[in-house]
Amino acid sequence: MDDQAAASRELRFGANYVPSQGWFHGWLDLDRAAVARDLDDIASLGMDHVRIFPVWPWIQPNRAHVRARAVADVRTVIQLGAERGLDVCVDLLQGHLSSFDFLPSWVLTWHQRSIFTDPDVRAGLRWYVEELVRALAPEPNVFAFTLGNEVNNLWPANATSADASREWAQDLLGAIRDNARADQLVVHSLFDDAFYAPDHPFSAADVTTLGDVSSVHSWVFNGTSRIDGPLGPATTSHAAYLARLAGACGAADRPVWLQELGAPLPDVPADAAPEFVRHTVAAAGAVSTLTGITWWCSHDIDRRLVDFPEREYDLGLFTVDHVAKPAALALRDAVEAARTADRAVPQSISLPADIVADPSARSLVAPGSAFHRAWVALGERPDGHFAPPLITPFSPE
Amino acid sequence: MDDQAAASRELRFGANYVPSQGWFHGWLDLDRAAVARDLDDIASLGMDHVRIFPVWPWIQPNRAHVRARAVADVRTVIQLGAERGLDVCVDLLQGHLSSFDFLPSWVLTWHQRSIFTDPDVRAGLRWYVEELVRALAPEPNVFAFTLGNEVNNLWPANATSADASREWAQDLLGAIRDNARADQLVVHSLFDDAFYAPDHPFSAADVTTLGDVSSVHSWVFNGTSRIDGPLGPATTSHAAYLARLAGACGAADRPVWLQELGAPLPDVPADAAPEFVRHTVAAAGAVSTLTGITWWCSHDIDRRLVDFPEREYDLGLFTVDHVAKPAALALRDAVEAARTADRAVPQSISLPADIVADPSARSLVAPGSAFHRAWVALGERPDGHFAPPLITPFSPE
Repeated sequence: MDDQAAASRELRFGANYVPSQGWFHGWLDLDRAAVARDLDDIASLGMDHVRIFPVWPWIQPNRAHVRARAVADVRTVIQLGAERGLDVCVDLLQGHLSSFDFLPSWVLTWHQRSIFTDPDVRAGLRWYVEELVRALAPEPNVFAFTLGNEVNNLWPANATSADASREWAQDLLGAIRDNARADQLVVHSLFDDAFYAPDHPFSAADVTTLGDVSSVHSWVFNGTSRIDGPLGPATTSHAAYLARLAGACGAADRPVWLQELGAPLPDVPADAAPEFVRHTVAAAGAVSTLTGITWWCSHDIDRRLVDFPEREYDLGLFTVDHVAKPAALALRDAVEAARTADRAVPQSISLPADIVADPSARSLVAPGSAFHRAWVALGERPDGHFAPPLITPFSPE
Repeated sequence: MDDQAAASRELRFGANYVPSQGWFHGWLDLDRAAVARDLDDIASLGMDHVRIFPVWPWIQPNRAHVRARAVADVRTVIQLGAERGLDVCVDLLQGHLSSFDFLPSWVLTWHQRSIFTDPDVRAGLRWYVEELVRALAPEPNVFAFTLGNEVNNLWPANATSADASREWAQDLLGAIRDNARADQLVVHSLFDDAFYAPDHPFSAADVTTLGDVSSVHSWVFNGTSRIDGPLGPATTSHAAYLARLAGACGAADRPVWLQELGAPLPDVPADAAPEFVRHTVAAAGAVSTLTGITWWCSHDIDRRLVDFPEREYDLGLFTVDHVAKPAALALRDAVEAARTADRAVPQSISLPADIVADPSARSLVAPGSAFHRAWVALGERPDGHFAPPLITPFSPE
């Protein structure tokens, strides 16, 4: 990441891989042909990577038992990706997936222990992380390890504090680093309450100072879409806004990975999705520190599976029958355009508070806040384009 | 069960099957050869049956998805039993196993719903039960289905009331009955708080009136062993006591299955285990309504697995290396002797309260209560044998 401009020009483009058959339950019955077919879909869009989500408690059903076959199954998926020219980010602690928490029996009910604070659980997690990274790091196409998908969703079921969460992540990210190749990214993944929620026990600084990149997840159902609808500037600039916030809460030149971006119903109606994609990617792509865009997600969820929030079912670029949706083609073209787009920054605005030093001030930058609205207004261009203003740190005078 | 005396003479003898390799995690990687070897051990003791414990959330990871391969794996274990002359009881909702609760993500955290009271969860459970029973009932050697192992351990993690628990069990036991063969037993399984704990939201009547037999689980770590040690009459008559209590809380001639009986450390030291077995089986075998004894458990737990309560590791009749322990041979001989032993009942004693109508009075019959001590004293014989007194219902005068 020495050459920021080059990294940006080589904007990574990929998908969060949600299997079309049986969702992530497919890990229990790995079907090579089904996975290969899904990865063919993804590769057909010109993507260069996927992010994959092994399910933790099925791999480590006892704290001292990591199933060799389950690890081999993850390796198989990685290698199927390699055969199609796809690099792979492996997320380790799932953990949280589309509203469902997968937690092993050894941290539940009679064995209830916070995964963030219990020392024995920590020892088990560290061993799990080490085992998986040691086993998978040698795969040439693994380019990143994420500690776990949006691990802050595992709170409040698991008690923690801001200090405890940070120390937990530092320790486990260190375990990844110690066992990964030097060229593999180590990534921490949090949903955006880390930037917006005053009492949230995971901080913006966790995003911007832990691991090798700042990973941001842009979901406009967080209140943003209610500001100005599916195609309004606040909504379609939200990904860029998060990327700029990351820059303001850490080193200004630290790489930002837009690790999740989606067009959720009903916030973004299906017929508005392609336009939402074009505007969103154009705005985010104008952030020079952005190194990659990874769409959530590759495939829809089969409606024979139940209990998902309604908005989770139709997030795929492809249907469960492997048909590319209009948003998929719009995304492909938008990312290609973003690689050569202007990344000049005409405007800047300072944070209204030091939300790293004073997390209780985070509501001041949340979607709909005066600051957020001012940022959006500053970025709007008469020609309908959006030039995401730089956000600079709080300057108290 | 028309001929009680005959059923008693044909006392069933079996083991709760705990796999020697990987404990119940073995369901995730079924190893036919390893299971066959374990079942060979069990058959070598002259046992006629095993009770097996599929792990629910691995079979039904989504409320609307029962994994065909997982069901096939259960069938495989049943058939491996048949090849060795072993009948099989299939427990469905695990659920609770040796302190660990296995619960699917669709009843946890963001999807937290009581398995006992939520109507959507109920629909999912009924479907699960129906699918498994329909698939497995045709296997000739399946002689019983238990709704789930000690489902009352799933409370308090899942809220319930006595009425709700009973209605839940009635409904699901009905679903088993509707799909099982007429000659297959339908069984409800609760640990003994149903008889002893005043506030427990599962009642003695659940044991004695639901399903086809009263299933009792005798664990002397419930306080009994503290009365008079591993070989005292209170301790070694506890299984018989539960069987008699069942008779007093339901139809006097209803069959009783001693579905779990074990010699837990440190309550029963290893060198006392054979004698504990002899006395316990002799006392229980003197209860004429007893139809079977199923030892907990077949095999020890590999100490490389962690987080189990210490007493769970060494409960096996066999070590993880397939060596029969002294208690195993003592058990085989004791059951054989019980088949021809005297079942005359010289004494009887009335319950001190109607613990079915007034569950809050259950502490009056708990281990160590005046009633329990009186019952033990009444059963002791000068020759050291124990003749378990009949317990008759409370008679208010």
